[in-house]
Amino acid sequence: MSLLYALDLLGTAAFAASGSLAAIRREMDLFGVLMLGLVTACGGGTLRDLLLGDTPPFIFKDETYLYLSVAVALVVFFLHHHLDFIRHPLPYFDAVGLGTFVVIGTGKALEFNLGLFGSVMMGVMTATAGGMIRDLLSAQVPMVLQREVYASACLAGGTLLYLLHHYTTIPHAWALVASALLVVVMRLAAIRYNWALPRAVKQHQD
Amino acid sequence: MSLLYALDLLGTAAFAASGSLAAIRREMDLFGVLMLGLVTACGGGTLRDLLLGDTPPFIFKDETYLYLSVAVALVVFFLHHHLDFIRHPLPYFDAVGLGTFVVIGTGKALEFNLGLFGSVMMGVMTATAGGMIRDLLSAQVPMVLQREVYASACLAGGTLLYLLHHYTTIPHAWALVASALLVVVMRLAAIRYNWALPRAVKQHQD
Amino acid sequence: MSLLYALDLLGTAAFAASGSLAAIRREMDLFGVLMLGLVTACGGGTLRDLLLGDTPPFIFKDETYLYLSVAVALVVFFLHHHLDFIRHPLPYFDAVGLGTFVVIGTGKALEFNLGLFGSVMMGVMTATAGGMIRDLLSAQVPMVLQREVYASACLAGGTLLYLLHHYTTIPHAWALVASALLVVVMRLAAIRYNWALPRAVKQHQD
Repeated sequence: MSLLYALDLLGTAAFAASGSLAAIRREMDLFGVLMLGLVTACGGGTLRDLLLGDTPPFIFKDETYLYLSVAVALVVFFLHHHLDFIRHPLPYFDAVGLGTFVVIGTGKALEFNLGLFGSVMMGVMTATAGGMIRDLLSAQVPMVLQREVYASACLAGGTLLYLLHHYTTIPHAWALVASALLVVVMRLAAIRYNWALPRAVKQHQD
Repeated sequence: MSLLYALDLLGTAAFAASGSLAAIRREMDLFGVLMLGLVTACGGGTLRDLLLGDTPPFIFKDETYLYLSVAVALVVFFLHHHLDFIRHPLPYFDAVGLGTFVVIGTGKALEFNLGLFGSVMMGVMTATAGGMIRDLLSAQVPMVLQREVYASACLAGGTLLYLLHHYTTIPHAWALVASALLVVVMRLAAIRYNWALPRAVKQHQD
Repeated sequence: MSLLYALDLLGTAAFAASGSLAAIRREMDLFGVLMLGLVTACGGGTLRDLLLGDTPPFIFKDETYLYLSVAVALVVFFLHHHLDFIRHPLPYFDAVGLGTFVVIGTGKALEFNLGLFGSVMMGVMTATAGGMIRDLLSAQVPMVLQREVYASACLAGGTLLYLLHHYTTIPHAWALVASALLVVVMRLAAIRYNWALPRAVKQHQD
């Protein structure tokens, strides 16, 4: 499944870029930039492996993810004035990463025989927990809790994969591709059309 | 022990309600409300199971907790204008949840043969870590670190259970009930009489 | 290795003092002060053990760390007006703790056969994650991401230990001492000469 691995690395690089850019905006020093790139890219999968009891987590079994994240963060740190050409495609790479992370997370949960809710949660967590840790370390309310149909796309993709796996005879590889594509398409459509989830109207101010 | 299970679900529902109300106050979107309901209700027990090495955590073995939390969060999201009747009893349900979570956490630590400090810590963590994660995700200093005798009630209940278990021959079920009751009574008394822990007088301003 | 154990306890005490002082500055109550002392002193090693899958973490196998942290936090809480004599030596104890925690963390990762990146990360995490949790619970951007050559000293020490272990025949005890000393010296030099890591120049304000 080397296509999945390639997409996984692409997503890792995109997430590392978003993390290190956030650190630069918060005026962190070099270590902070490396750290935020690292946790944004690898935090979700690490948390998933912790919850599944699959320790040490994947990043310690294949250190490629760690080196790639730090390399991207270093490039962003030293060249971020010259990276304007990357700002336009970054959301697309990010969307591909999102789809890939969801199907890897939910796919791994299926191997561990989790139920529907747990399997979908593992997919969503793999894709979004890194960004949440990034925002926590920046002392901000996580973006995913406030804006856009980011998590919903992950929910839809994870659910589709669970259903295809348990209730159809579609080959696993096709189920992965279909579910990842659903995430990517929903995510890009959300950006394009500025979709947003409803918010509760506030009733009181405390 | 089906009474314990029933109280556990009641506490889960009460904690999910408090988490989703916090998310609505922070103007999060639907996903944020579901997420905060979920982590507030299930985060403490999940962290406890991670630390005990009992993976996957309980929520993935019995998904009732997950569905219940999301159902409560959905009700709060869509009906929170019409839920005034729940504001009055909520602190009582919350207190019952607190007592139940403490004895479940400390009780599980006793099965894993932890010492006094570790056992009490597991009870306190089961009862309070969900609320701490809720506050972290809202970018606020956790309430439990600042206000009221919330954690002290948990400390007292966990300690009582440990002592009853190791130094008396009281049946385990009775020890659970007595310890949970101690937490509930202390918590309600703290609300009623506005008890607070001492604070250190500040010496300098840095 | 009782010298290492003694230094470990000294570092634990120093970290507990820094955590409880931070809680007092944030006007937390007694529970908050104990809690921040505890997580600052024990959080890094606990997270390391979770990631290595070595559960329950070390603090539950030898509760000395827990009692020591709480004792220090209690002393700080009740006597912090009279502890001026400790403000001067505290950074030195803290530096010793930093060096000790790094070699304990990286040393443990070597036993678990992690690679270079993972081993160094475990050392850095053991030494810095407690302080990061302290800052998160205070709703602040972690100090380690913003200031001074704190983490770099840990990186250097962890890397030295990994290299000495894998590429030389130096006895393990000597490798531990040399690596810990490197951390301590770098840390103290950073304080003395006010070293800082570079920051990226901001390009835009979003």
